[in-house]
Amino acid sequence: MSKEITSRKDDYAQWYNDLVIKGDLADYSAVRGCMVIKPYGFGLWEKMRDQLDKMFKDTGHVNAYFPLFIPKSFLSREAAHVEGFAKECAVVTHYRLKNDPEGSGIIVDPDAKLEEELIVRPTSETIIWNTYKTWIQSYRDLPLLVNQWANVVRWEMRTRLFLRTAEFLWQEGHTAHATAEEAIAETMQMLDVYAEFAEKYMAVPVIKGVKTASERFAGAVDTYCIEALMQDGKALQSGTSHFLGQNFAKAFDVRFSDKDNQLDYVWATSWGVSTRLVGALVMAHSDDEGLILPPRIAPLQVVVIPIYKGTEKKEALDARLKQFMAELKAAGIRVKLDDNDNSRPGWKFAEYEMKGIPVRIAMGLRDLENNAAEVARRDTREKKTVSMDGLVTYISNLLEEIQQNMYNKALTYRDEHITRADSWAQFEKLLDDKGGFISAHWDGEAETEEAIKEKTKATIRCIPLNNPEEEGKCILTGRPSRQRVLFARAY
Amino acid sequence: MSKEITSRKDDYAQWYNDLVIKGDLADYSAVRGCMVIKPYGFGLWEKMRDQLDKMFKDTGHVNAYFPLFIPKSFLSREAAHVEGFAKECAVVTHYRLKNDPEGSGIIVDPDAKLEEELIVRPTSETIIWNTYKTWIQSYRDLPLLVNQWANVVRWEMRTRLFLRTAEFLWQEGHTAHATAEEAIAETMQMLDVYAEFAEKYMAVPVIKGVKTASERFAGAVDTYCIEALMQDGKALQSGTSHFLGQNFAKAFDVRFSDKDNQLDYVWATSWGVSTRLVGALVMAHSDDEGLILPPRIAPLQVVVIPIYKGTEKKEALDARLKQFMAELKAAGIRVKLDDNDNSRPGWKFAEYEMKGIPVRIAMGLRDLENNAAEVARRDTREKKTVSMDGLVTYISNLLEEIQQNMYNKALTYRDEHITRADSWAQFEKLLDDKGGFISAHWDGEAETEEAIKEKTKATIRCIPLNNPEEEGKCILTGRPSRQRVLFARAY
Repeated sequence: MSKEITSRKDDYAQWYNDLVIKGDLADYSAVRGCMVIKPYGFGLWEKMRDQLDKMFKDTGHVNAYFPLFIPKSFLSREAAHVEGFAKECAVVTHYRLKNDPEGSGIIVDPDAKLEEELIVRPTSETIIWNTYKTWIQSYRDLPLLVNQWANVVRWEMRTRLFLRTAEFLWQEGHTAHATAEEAIAETMQMLDVYAEFAEKYMAVPVIKGVKTASERFAGAVDTYCIEALMQDGKALQSGTSHFLGQNFAKAFDVRFSDKDNQLDYVWATSWGVSTRLVGALVMAHSDDEGLILPPRIAPLQVVVIPIYKGTEKKEALDARLKQFMAELKAAGIRVKLDDNDNSRPGWKFAEYEMKGIPVRIAMGLRDLENNAAEVARRDTREKKTVSMDGLVTYISNLLEEIQQNMYNKALTYRDEHITRADSWAQFEKLLDDKGGFISAHWDGEAETEEAIKEKTKATIRCIPLNNPEEEGKCILTGRPSRQRVLFARAY
Repeated sequence: MSKEITSRKDDYAQWYNDLVIKGDLADYSAVRGCMVIKPYGFGLWEKMRDQLDKMFKDTGHVNAYFPLFIPKSFLSREAAHVEGFAKECAVVTHYRLKNDPEGSGIIVDPDAKLEEELIVRPTSETIIWNTYKTWIQSYRDLPLLVNQWANVVRWEMRTRLFLRTAEFLWQEGHTAHATAEEAIAETMQMLDVYAEFAEKYMAVPVIKGVKTASERFAGAVDTYCIEALMQDGKALQSGTSHFLGQNFAKAFDVRFSDKDNQLDYVWATSWGVSTRLVGALVMAHSDDEGLILPPRIAPLQVVVIPIYKGTEKKEALDARLKQFMAELKAAGIRVKLDDNDNSRPGWKFAEYEMKGIPVRIAMGLRDLENNAAEVARRDTREKKTVSMDGLVTYISNLLEEIQQNMYNKALTYRDEHITRADSWAQFEKLLDDKGGFISAHWDGEAETEEAIKEKTKATIRCIPLNNPEEEGKCILTGRPSRQRVLFARAY
């Protein structure tokens, strides 16, 4: 191996960190809590972003761009919102630096103090609803289906690459509607879009559900989410879709006249996923040899490596591979030929395993004579010698098979890790020994939820959609409950 | 007309502002100097961005993402750089808000002061070269061909939508090379990419040249630029490509060992274009009726409008248009059918003229009977009745013709506005009466350049590439000069 990775068994957190850094996805930066997304990691994010963007546009949304800065007073307009976001934000107070007259270098110019401080957006509801006030007058202006791809900043104290960073990239949809029904339908539609994206493209199965009041977005009436399960049995919230009611419309006085010329406040949704999804992808699929990327969003799907010593017959091999590469590209496969003489094949094999390239094809002189190549798939690490006749079709099918296999494997693991608990002792034991989602009764009280969190670090990840009613007793308090909810320790 | 636009003749600046706002491209925001890019304007930027991104990737570049924040001390590392950028930047000094214990609302928490202030990036050379230090050890790590799409902030005092805003969107390429020759070749390559993009996609002819020392990027050895001409005779710098020498490598101690194991500082380039290009596009082509967008980057290339009264035969018209729409889409044409009953055709015509849609197709019941449609092109405002047979091919060709016509028109205007001046009186008169680029001798002194700027507001836009040598006398000082340079008043 060219690079050492800590095993999952030894230290899951360190394994994750090793993968992100040695897999060339991202690195720490000189700015506390901010990461550098390296070209390979950004290539992966681009694939995810482009697919999501297509799905947003297919459902009628358009992109726009709103200011990075939010006037401090805007945050206070929506009472719950300011509670949620004021605590950890970057505050711009000045707009100029100058040379210190006393010679200590460059300093903040005290004369360039802003009248009102600006917050670097932690999310954009306030600045967007302040703008919507000028865009919306009549029911004819509705619905407004807008999305923004942007960077946001939340001053987290403990950060982890992709999972929790001070600055991250995301998209935030902000829609405006004439009726509550329509806004709720939009909220659910976008939850479905997220679930479809996670399952079909990331090969990560998710549970759709609604958050409890204490886990709700600050300013939302209801927060819906998709929850995924990582290989260490911890859950990861992978996307949220909020029904905001008329909260922001009231805070920013956004009213519209309906068909009967009656004025009413506008109904709102917002929904977002972020570069956190890259972390989810890494943790859901990878192994101790490195990343394992699903073919549909892998920046590179296939790598082709020629094997030879000396230069004898190299020309024939090169010619055959050149032709093969053209065929793969013509079939729409993202492929790279690595004929770099500076590295040995063994080193290359390890490197591409580390980077999670779904399929590796090696071809030596004997393969050339036999009209065959060695095909290795990253997910199962199986190797097979395959005839060059029909190899492109074989590879296309194999990529699809890998995508399905990765999803099925993650689904099996996830389904095996949804366990019912009917006593507190069982609940605690499951959390410690097995992890995963624990389906248990809860009395519906925020205090109980908080007490469970304090005792076990487990939170209610969600109340699944279409959750069956079932009489029972709260796992902690024994009080009556009408449904089970999903608990887990989470990222 | 549904919306009034100031004419170019009456007030060019107001005309531009009207177009941007009434054409739905952008609007002012609640944050001083920051704009909201509206969906239509962002759609245009997306088309430009996607094409540029493709051209960057075709020339071997990859995207990455670096932090929004730059530690204050980083700016000071490169002496010229800090001079250029410290004066107008947003400074983050705190990381938390809190409720005022004295009840005056939400305030900056004085306990949450950063040890070192963070600057919102005005450009990213410093944070990127600090990162490259860990990425580059050997010649094998070079070249590094990285681009970033990002928002940046420069605290401009006087702002104009797209042309000069406190926050703007851009791309910044940052490449690292083993030799000066290679870095210079990269600088020139990207200048060519920008010129090709401006001319082939934006239909805006540009002059490629090098900046004088006083107009150089802060920290560059040489700054190359493309300069475009607007309809009011003012120049607009539309993109820059910088050869940075070893300045940033030295400031951040980035060295590499070459093939002979000798250590040397790395050679650098950086290059960028921004949402300013949207402003250039608007000002180069539009007229008093609204925007005129070149087909290759117009978000919408064709709009189809059915014309009818009552419902008679409406079904037959609908069916024919539906089929036609499918054919246009199959041909890769970005088209929209506007069959909204709430607006009259006349209102729609004005609206789509305002928005600069290249081609408008109207079809009424008589057209249906005659198997024809009315085709109106936005650039010349010509209308023509065309048979439905072969109409898709006709439209495809027409879009190409409009693209060419827009370029040719702008080129003719530009070429007619490059004028030689051989005396100071002539120089001043040309600036005031005709505008455009003035080709005149300059003695090469920064003081002379500054004096000319003070007297006339004209700056040296560039020394064109492959500028012919020609003995002459400086337009202001009469001192000897060996070449003409291009002066203009500029945005």
